[in-house]
Amino acid sequence: MTGPYRESHARAIGKAISWRVLGTLATTFLVWLFTRQVALAATVGALEAIMKGVLYYAHERGWNHVRFGRHEAEPAVVWFTGLSGSGKSTIAEEVFAQLKRRGYKAERLDGDTIRSIFPQTGFTRDERDAHIRRVGYLASKLEQNGVFVVASLVSPYQDSRDFVRSLCRNFIEVYISTSLDECERRDVKGLYARARRGEIKNFTGIDDPYESPTDAEVVIDTTQVSVDAAAVKILSHMPLRS
Amino acid sequence: MTGPYRESHARAIGKAISWRVLGTLATTFLVWLFTRQVALAATVGALEAIMKGVLYYAHERGWNHVRFGRHEAEPAVVWFTGLSGSGKSTIAEEVFAQLKRRGYKAERLDGDTIRSIFPQTGFTRDERDAHIRRVGYLASKLEQNGVFVVASLVSPYQDSRDFVRSLCRNFIEVYISTSLDECERRDVKGLYARARRGEIKNFTGIDDPYESPTDAEVVIDTTQVSVDAAAVKILSHMPLRS
Repeated sequence: MTGPYRESHARAIGKAISWRVLGTLATTFLVWLFTRQVALAATVGALEAIMKGVLYYAHERGWNHVRFGRHEAEPAVVWFTGLSGSGKSTIAEEVFAQLKRRGYKAERLDGDTIRSIFPQTGFTRDERDAHIRRVGYLASKLEQNGVFVVASLVSPYQDSRDFVRSLCRNFIEVYISTSLDECERRDVKGLYARARRGEIKNFTGIDDPYESPTDAEVVIDTTQVSVDAAAVKILSHMPLRS
Repeated sequence: MTGPYRESHARAIGKAISWRVLGTLATTFLVWLFTRQVALAATVGALEAIMKGVLYYAHERGWNHVRFGRHEAEPAVVWFTGLSGSGKSTIAEEVFAQLKRRGYKAERLDGDTIRSIFPQTGFTRDERDAHIRRVGYLASKLEQNGVFVVASLVSPYQDSRDFVRSLCRNFIEVYISTSLDECERRDVKGLYARARRGEIKNFTGIDDPYESPTDAEVVIDTTQVSVDAAAVKILSHMPLRS
């Protein structure tokens, strides 16, 4: 049975060569040790190198068709929830970058980015709920297929988050608990000011509720913790190899 | 750099043993060939077996951290479009089963199944269009992460299908062209009868249009082709290893 991941012929050749250097040195040393004949040891070593180089390559290619012992990292869905401007995306980007740096498959899902692809998604409770559930479904399908997901959505409703949690295997809810006062003080995108002026409706924290998570795996207050420290804390909750 | 796919210690041990049997036989034969001394050949063989068994294991574990030469199969999104009852799901299931049997990562996305998870999705043109686009976005994210996608949705609009095509890398549109008459004659789920009685609104083919694809990679008329033959035809369009 062939696994989904192929190894190239070049890899088998590379391994055959690196192993030959090791193996031939060992054999030559052994023959010399027993016979103390340098010429004989060198001849056996040279012949062995050629013969086994070919044999090793064939052996590697054969194992390429064997699934046994090939593991995939067990992934997780890291779900950032919190008010607009709380710092979700900044920390999510750092966690995502660290996963990629370690060689994991990872996908970044950002609520605003996905909304920009589907501009018809509105901000009523039903529309927000559907948006969260759909992104959660996407996250769970990626997770089922071996991909780490780093999602950041305001996701203000407990019900919607619980639905997403129920779909995922390793669900790590990260509540960025930066207070409304602090978010409004920062107001990086000027959205709070617009919401206060009534130019934006159904704005979470102003005229739409934010239901604080009660069962988040990680809680981070960005007025207390740096981005790096937050990322370290979140990564420590994930099933990563050392 | 560690790759996303790990090999277990047990795999390295298994390979070390299978290689030792091959390698030690070769070395013993070589030493015997040059010295004609059975005892010497056996001793060198035995010592080599122990020494290299350990060395081979270490060599394998070392290569586990090398990415070079590890390929992933390049996946595709196979998108089935056609009228209700045209035979999309039956053929899609067969294609999906064959991909899984060959060891590929694959995900099956069915329009009706996803609608059952998101029952708020309606059947107006806008809602259908959004539904198709969202499933297409999901498909493209899976494809980007190395997963084959076998999707079956009525997906009656050219615009929506074109949007999905634009998101995917290897997009294989499969048009199941079974005629409306034939679909209505079969009427497996009794939906056409209900649509004719006006119990279902916006039913594709009855009171909602089906825009036949003009650029489908594969066209299949189920009155002419068996399920198995259809699957073979579709698989031949996919970037599969032999």
